[in-house]
Amino acid sequence: MSLTKVSLEPPYLLYLADVADNDHAKTGFGIAHWRPELCAGQMRLAGCPVDLGLPEMGVSDAVDAGIRTAIIGVAPVGGQIPDHWLPQLIKLARAGIDIASGMHSKLKSMPDLVAAAYKGRSNLTDVRVPPSNIPIGQGRPRSGKRVLMIGTDCAVGKKYSALALHRELERRDVRATFRATGQTGIMIAGEGIPIDAVVADFISGAAEILSPDNDDEHWDVIEGQGSLLNPSYSGVTLGLLHGSQPDALVLCHDATRTETLEVFGDYRIPELDEVIDDALRLARRTRPGCFCAGVSVNTSAMTDFEREGYLGKLQDHLGLPCVDPVAIGMSPIANFMLKHTS
Amino acid sequence: MSLTKVSLEPPYLLYLADVADNDHAKTGFGIAHWRPELCAGQMRLAGCPVDLGLPEMGVSDAVDAGIRTAIIGVAPVGGQIPDHWLPQLIKLARAGIDIASGMHSKLKSMPDLVAAAYKGRSNLTDVRVPPSNIPIGQGRPRSGKRVLMIGTDCAVGKKYSALALHRELERRDVRATFRATGQTGIMIAGEGIPIDAVVADFISGAAEILSPDNDDEHWDVIEGQGSLLNPSYSGVTLGLLHGSQPDALVLCHDATRTETLEVFGDYRIPELDEVIDDALRLARRTRPGCFCAGVSVNTSAMTDFEREGYLGKLQDHLGLPCVDPVAIGMSPIANFMLKHTS
Repeated sequence: MSLTKVSLEPPYLLYLADVADNDHAKTGFGIAHWRPELCAGQMRLAGCPVDLGLPEMGVSDAVDAGIRTAIIGVAPVGGQIPDHWLPQLIKLARAGIDIASGMHSKLKSMPDLVAAAYKGRSNLTDVRVPPSNIPIGQGRPRSGKRVLMIGTDCAVGKKYSALALHRELERRDVRATFRATGQTGIMIAGEGIPIDAVVADFISGAAEILSPDNDDEHWDVIEGQGSLLNPSYSGVTLGLLHGSQPDALVLCHDATRTETLEVFGDYRIPELDEVIDDALRLARRTRPGCFCAGVSVNTSAMTDFEREGYLGKLQDHLGLPCVDPVAIGMSPIANFMLKHTS
Repeated sequence: MSLTKVSLEPPYLLYLADVADNDHAKTGFGIAHWRPELCAGQMRLAGCPVDLGLPEMGVSDAVDAGIRTAIIGVAPVGGQIPDHWLPQLIKLARAGIDIASGMHSKLKSMPDLVAAAYKGRSNLTDVRVPPSNIPIGQGRPRSGKRVLMIGTDCAVGKKYSALALHRELERRDVRATFRATGQTGIMIAGEGIPIDAVVADFISGAAEILSPDNDDEHWDVIEGQGSLLNPSYSGVTLGLLHGSQPDALVLCHDATRTETLEVFGDYRIPELDEVIDDALRLARRTRPGCFCAGVSVNTSAMTDFEREGYLGKLQDHLGLPCVDPVAIGMSPIANFMLKHTS
């Protein structure tokens, strides 16, 4: 059973279109951060407030700069490519620049874009295509160790935390593999399964083949998807949790977030100890000894002083390492996790 | 936004192939029970132990009996149509008999069957095809009332309980609609959404459009899918639970079942009060006042005396109506549910 694999030719142009805020440009930020050596520019529509700090390019600039692949770096709710993005994408494809997308709607299903790519001899790559023949989840325990990111919501830093934890484990010569569950992670890692694009009956089966049997001391660091607390995506999250059979969970949170994104009504985020208890209760259905290895919080809106106070208080309350993965790093969580499984 | 709609021409032949037991012939049993006036026969492969009590037919018998549609009445794990079923299906299609299937693998993707249907001028209907353009779940509260079946496992009588509760409400002139979430329910009702065939990101969105805004006193009686306790399907179940925003849950259980089906390892079913508490805790994320209206148990393996003792004890322990939906009926649960929402 093989994973979804992608191979994108650099240098990259990150296409940001006109999404409203950074939360909807996770792909762009992720690739710019984790593969900076491959990113040469960004392209935006008028009024786009998102800025990756890369050189601004139009189509002819991109051609002049030798851009090989334009990656759609944003994801509006629902994952559809709006019509008004098409003119620029068509020009890029006609100019011979490959286009990659992780949206639910497929580049290859857009006749005008397909025609432009044919004329320009460029490739269209749809990353959010799960492998075929995913089996139903089996529930069979697997060898090797697994840590899964869960979140108090979507867009709280699960992918970032997973990649940072993976890098920290590698730094310590702990054998580890980052397991991508979303389009950005797949573009960064080159393989994975877009778990939210799998047919519902096969979510946990997909999670099982994503982190197969491995050596006893090997860690799969699994990117999470959605949140048990966000009613739009909670089914994806539970299927991933049950299929991953994680030894450890890392809870990811955004310190400024009090309610879940993208839903109507009152979906407040509960206290973090309650969130952890509920997640562990569900996780232990398939992995009885599952524990929480720490909390990874986006505190970018705080001063250093505020951050220290916030994380210190949280750590005292939970009795778990609480870090900002950017300001502090994942080392305390790696310590706790490795100590608890040695 | 429209639902998946199917229109099948009777009389029906229920195709049972060679599945191992009744648990895998839910579609056949469901249609034979709820639409007996439309069912004229059954067809089996050698050694099939499942028997609906309908006249046994070969292909020529079916033609002689004027069968209009052969319905695949079984579902092996994974929902694929095995190759060795094809010869009979091809003969039926070539003889002008329509074929309907609720499997994940599609009749229309099988070239030999498509060719036979073309020659025989028969129709191939794939029921497990969700409507296109399902939105992401919104989490917006909706008007009207909803009751959702949940189960301690798959194949414990959720569809039967929902249909029986719907019939009981209609008998009392309570306005109600049965909302089908699976292939059998859709074949019985003529419409619904095959929730386990929806792309993972859209599960709760599908549940939302399945039971839209309605009059305050109207009940949607929603068929459940899978189980929070069965790791193969728990993601589907949670997405359906969060999207349905049920006012009430009915827990369905098979009194002989101690472990969940179709998974490896030790997946014991917990005590029912624990199952109810956990489900309500999750349900209240989108419907704060959600309550359990009763437990519907398959006690067909018990004597009348055993059943009375079992259900009596359970009822005393839970403080909720506990019935066998066949032997006793859903009236006590309907009473409890209506009283608690009046």
